[in-house]
Amino acid sequence: MTNGLLIVFTGNGKGKTTAALGMAMRAAGHGLKVCCIQFIKGSWQYGELDAIKRFEGLIDLHVMGKGFTWKSENLEEDARLAREGWDLACTAIASGIYHTVVLDEFTYLLHYQMLEIDPCLQILTNRNPNQHVVITGRYAPEQLLAVADLVTEMRAVKHPLQAGIKAQKGIEF
Amino acid sequence: MTNGLLIVFTGNGKGKTTAALGMAMRAAGHGLKVCCIQFIKGSWQYGELDAIKRFEGLIDLHVMGKGFTWKSENLEEDARLAREGWDLACTAIASGIYHTVVLDEFTYLLHYQMLEIDPCLQILTNRNPNQHVVITGRYAPEQLLAVADLVTEMRAVKHPLQAGIKAQKGIEF
Repeated sequence: MTNGLLIVFTGNGKGKTTAALGMAMRAAGHGLKVCCIQFIKGSWQYGELDAIKRFEGLIDLHVMGKGFTWKSENLEEDARLAREGWDLACTAIASGIYHTVVLDEFTYLLHYQMLEIDPCLQILTNRNPNQHVVITGRYAPEQLLAVADLVTEMRAVKHPLQAGIKAQKGIEF
Repeated sequence: MTNGLLIVFTGNGKGKTTAALGMAMRAAGHGLKVCCIQFIKGSWQYGELDAIKRFEGLIDLHVMGKGFTWKSENLEEDARLAREGWDLACTAIASGIYHTVVLDEFTYLLHYQMLEIDPCLQILTNRNPNQHVVITGRYAPEQLLAVADLVTEMRAVKHPLQAGIKAQKGIEF
């Protein structure tokens, strides 16, 4: 017996979205369909997007929201985008066509209370038991961790931005 | 100014190899060449291998060694394979053709003293300053972390094998 897993990559270190991207491409490598929903616009950039294109028909990527976790000037608009993204996630989860659904940077929506957590957890835990869901982002709430099957905390031990090296193509984006 | 980074994904949690794979595909998505050397045979399986094939000409994958970190029956053979893999890594690093070189599960060779650490660190730190090297694996030695630019510890907060769910296609491999 195998089971769909609810996987969370959290913590302040690098590699959360990258690991989710790797999982998406690995599943697609098996010929399995994946839906990726990116809740913070800009967190996946050209390298990812071009890589994803090589799996056309297998990985469906949706870019929702914008950089709404900080310096927001319009909280209502942000909450509306969050709900829209979550509605799309619910549709993808319910559709039954995806082996894996990736909710990239989704934790922020819960952390910043753009969404009510209980109904979200209900959808996540009542999904088809064979479907995998991968959630990334810092500040994963305890309630989410409690219902997850696999949680990895990416802990920043050392980060080059600390040393003043700027973000660069093929590494940070 | 941008700089090549020495990146280490270590710790006992999931996502180390997956994050390296994601970085490889991201760089390849930019059209940049990547060399991946897998030091433990079997750690990348069908999903990864099929995914990598979609980047033919951009990602060169070499499978070296075998499962030599535990239950080894032939330590001399293991050490020989480790040296062979490392020689290939040195060639890839020196070749100047790769934007990124991934040394997957390389930490074990250092941890289990299959290789001398000082000459390895010398090669890694004296490489072309624009080249990125990504090293994965548990038990990354302190000396390696000391010379790395970016270190993420993937910390297992929760793991499904603890709950008795077996490894499955598209997730674990």
